[in-house]
Amino acid sequence: MTNTQVTLIQIDNYGPWTVTPEPRREVDLQTLQSRLYADLSQLFGNREGYVFFTRFDNMVAVTNGLDADAHALIQESVGNRYPVSISLSIAVDSAPAEALGVATDQLQDAGSAQDRGRTEVLRGDTLADDERTDDDVQIAHFDVNDATEKYTDQLNEFDSFINIEQGYAELMRYMRKAHDSLSFFVGGDNIIAVCDAVDREGYADAIEHVNEAVGVELKVGVGRARNAQSAGMAAKHALETCREENTDVEFE
Amino acid sequence: MTNTQVTLIQIDNYGPWTVTPEPRREVDLQTLQSRLYADLSQLFGNREGYVFFTRFDNMVAVTNGLDADAHALIQESVGNRYPVSISLSIAVDSAPAEALGVATDQLQDAGSAQDRGRTEVLRGDTLADDERTDDDVQIAHFDVNDATEKYTDQLNEFDSFINIEQGYAELMRYMRKAHDSLSFFVGGDNIIAVCDAVDREGYADAIEHVNEAVGVELKVGVGRARNAQSAGMAAKHALETCREENTDVEFE
Amino acid sequence: MTNTQVTLIQIDNYGPWTVTPEPRREVDLQTLQSRLYADLSQLFGNREGYVFFTRFDNMVAVTNGLDADAHALIQESVGNRYPVSISLSIAVDSAPAEALGVATDQLQDAGSAQDRGRTEVLRGDTLADDERTDDDVQIAHFDVNDATEKYTDQLNEFDSFINIEQGYAELMRYMRKAHDSLSFFVGGDNIIAVCDAVDREGYADAIEHVNEAVGVELKVGVGRARNAQSAGMAAKHALETCREENTDVEFE
Amino acid sequence: MTNTQVTLIQIDNYGPWTVTPEPRREVDLQTLQSRLYADLSQLFGNREGYVFFTRFDNMVAVTNGLDADAHALIQESVGNRYPVSISLSIAVDSAPAEALGVATDQLQDAGSAQDRGRTEVLRGDTLADDERTDDDVQIAHFDVNDATEKYTDQLNEFDSFINIEQGYAELMRYMRKAHDSLSFFVGGDNIIAVCDAVDREGYADAIEHVNEAVGVELKVGVGRARNAQSAGMAAKHALETCREENTDVEFE
Repeated sequence: MTNTQVTLIQIDNYGPWTVTPEPRREVDLQTLQSRLYADLSQLFGNREGYVFFTRFDNMVAVTNGLDADAHALIQESVGNRYPVSISLSIAVDSAPAEALGVATDQLQDAGSAQDRGRTEVLRGDTLADDERTDDDVQIAHFDVNDATEKYTDQLNEFDSFINIEQGYAELMRYMRKAHDSLSFFVGGDNIIAVCDAVDREGYADAIEHVNEAVGVELKVGVGRARNAQSAGMAAKHALETCREENTDVEFE
Repeated sequence: MTNTQVTLIQIDNYGPWTVTPEPRREVDLQTLQSRLYADLSQLFGNREGYVFFTRFDNMVAVTNGLDADAHALIQESVGNRYPVSISLSIAVDSAPAEALGVATDQLQDAGSAQDRGRTEVLRGDTLADDERTDDDVQIAHFDVNDATEKYTDQLNEFDSFINIEQGYAELMRYMRKAHDSLSFFVGGDNIIAVCDAVDREGYADAIEHVNEAVGVELKVGVGRARNAQSAGMAAKHALETCREENTDVEFE
Repeated sequence: MTNTQVTLIQIDNYGPWTVTPEPRREVDLQTLQSRLYADLSQLFGNREGYVFFTRFDNMVAVTNGLDADAHALIQESVGNRYPVSISLSIAVDSAPAEALGVATDQLQDAGSAQDRGRTEVLRGDTLADDERTDDDVQIAHFDVNDATEKYTDQLNEFDSFINIEQGYAELMRYMRKAHDSLSFFVGGDNIIAVCDAVDREGYADAIEHVNEAVGVELKVGVGRARNAQSAGMAAKHALETCREENTDVEFE
Repeated sequence: MTNTQVTLIQIDNYGPWTVTPEPRREVDLQTLQSRLYADLSQLFGNREGYVFFTRFDNMVAVTNGLDADAHALIQESVGNRYPVSISLSIAVDSAPAEALGVATDQLQDAGSAQDRGRTEVLRGDTLADDERTDDDVQIAHFDVNDATEKYTDQLNEFDSFINIEQGYAELMRYMRKAHDSLSFFVGGDNIIAVCDAVDREGYADAIEHVNEAVGVELKVGVGRARNAQSAGMAAKHALETCREENTDVEFE
């Protein structure tokens, strides 16, 4: 069984801030958002976690191994360096989507995302150290077969992008419904899914479903470990095996 | 008539680099990609352009007002500060998707995205200064009605995200097909479209289409100007008018 | 005659902010300061200006070619992306130190650096476009002869640093007193001086003075142009000539 | 007794890189250097270490608590995100200057700073976990009395800077000679010294020496702890006590 610790990261009262006193320049907002994400990637990543940009004002992290103090420090560091602050809500469940649901509830209970008085919330329980095992996190790293040859080097870049997006949109919904798993586009033709204990058949079905629905052919490498970083690196190595052996699903 | 100058930005030989000599840590790749995008936002944005992250390894910019020298300087600045280099391809057309098509062709002609010998390409023609007008760029800024109330403060964050993504996926395809326009998710519940001279009815139809197809309700502010920055800021102000007057489509 | 436009950049009320409500983590302050400096380097640098980090809370820029609007945009961009804001004061004089003196006076007149009510000041006059010439800015780029061989590869790194610092401290004072010029350490063994129209003999004397006072041997390349970027690049090329021809002072 | 673990960070072959194939734009070099420093501040800082920018191409860190693996990860992360790589050399001694001397020797033995074949060196021994104590690191945080009132709000900014620099230059030499300690300017009017077990009288003498030599009046807060972060924060609190009680030397 997996035991995924998920953290929901939400910029406090961000929407109103972006238009107060009048709309701020888009290039500055884009810079702010992407740098905040980059910093969080490092802050969580240096503790073996993974962060996904999701909607940028709401981000999702896999944080097995990070305790409440580590979360508080990250929150403080952002507050020291940005014009906005962040709230954090943590939950643990075998199913990643369930964990994120609990984390979301906790934050919603604390107030609206656009409540000016609700800032720097830190809620939820982390996985106790003595309950952690070497199988807690399962990461699946998908990419598109021959994306460069079939898309990037052939199509109008926007049509390449539409194809990739369609594949992603289909996969994210399927994995959410069928497996309570959370899938994130991470650039290029890559999608990383944080999964419940999905087996080989489950992944093969997902790939088949996406191919049938939108004609995008995926392959996947799967890793499992004590934290996101190790599971994710194992998944990357498994995906390399897919490439070398021309297979669709590989477990490290 | 619009006259959009579009620049395709492609990281040279990025895919192979990410797995050579073996897969690089995902958190570093995420940091690299999002910081490169942030830097390009500033580099193009300081010259009144807009950049969209798209797939991160391929990005799209609206660059009316930037000549070949400005592009060369941006290319050099990235080369001086990153472990990867970028190629740039520029084209102009009344229809943004057409312009991007030409830009993509030019880059594909220069070699594959994964050709090690094809680095720092700079191709294409910019819009001559004496052909520029105050109406060249049309930007539409969409957002989702009551996104915080209906999604962020109610649903599991992943389901909020799925809803936003579905709305985006539908809009991007519709605007591409119906209007040769390019739509980009820019975070939160915001989508920015670079458009041909789409009129009020065209936007109303797009909004209706998305609502019927996936049940996501959008509104849109539209701006038009000499460059992306001014058109985009006008669009933001128009969107504020939508909010205040409870309307669906506003032109500044 | 030179005609240097200098901008004083001051973080508003920074000292108190760093200890309110209690001292902030030093690593976050260091990150904030150095990233703000990096951003300003790009923001001014993309408009052909140079910025020097000086004390980090007070920075000095050479801004020939940047008008009041460009300054306002930089100020706004920082305000949009940092937890602190900046004030800017601009002045022009043939002597860089005089220009900075006027710029400092203007800012001091507006209030104390630790006055909470004095934020985002923008004062002073820029050099009118029709008064600009191709000789307005003179930049001198110094480095230490054989710094790697004599210091870096030989001494305790702190003693290398002490030597470089002593050379810099002596040069900055000498150039200030003898030539109303502003010298800045820019890393490694490099010092960049923004100068009045100092001639070959002036530089030779400065080098001799530093050598006699503290035993550090410098050489210098000098460039002159319409703006800091071009003058600075010419100075770098002149310094390369010093290296190749084993000379002490070269004008491009 | 203190037991300071020091890491020397050196950019590999940096000098030649900055002028190959011809001199790179100074604004890009400044951006690269200051961002690399910012990143290292976070990378070491997230593990309770401190980094000082020193000459930027050579930086010094206090790294008690970071083992060889942590160093290797930081080295890899920089290699993944920058066009340059770094070498690291670690040593431990009661006297910080001695530790840095050993670290420098180790790196010099591996080759010149400008040897193209000497990249990503990682040498030296860290302090074993069971030898660590709660008194290993002593940090002294100095600032200048009434710097804003006497300098920033009164003098030409360059003269303020000259005063601060003179105070720093004097202190760094004195602390090096008298106490084998390493002092670093960290912006504003602040100097942080990594010290051997210097006592109250030692600090009072240093302050008196600087005042007599160059007329700059300092005060200092001193902290001691298991790592740099805790010692440094204790020093900041002690410095606040100096401010409140109008004293010159305070130990937390």
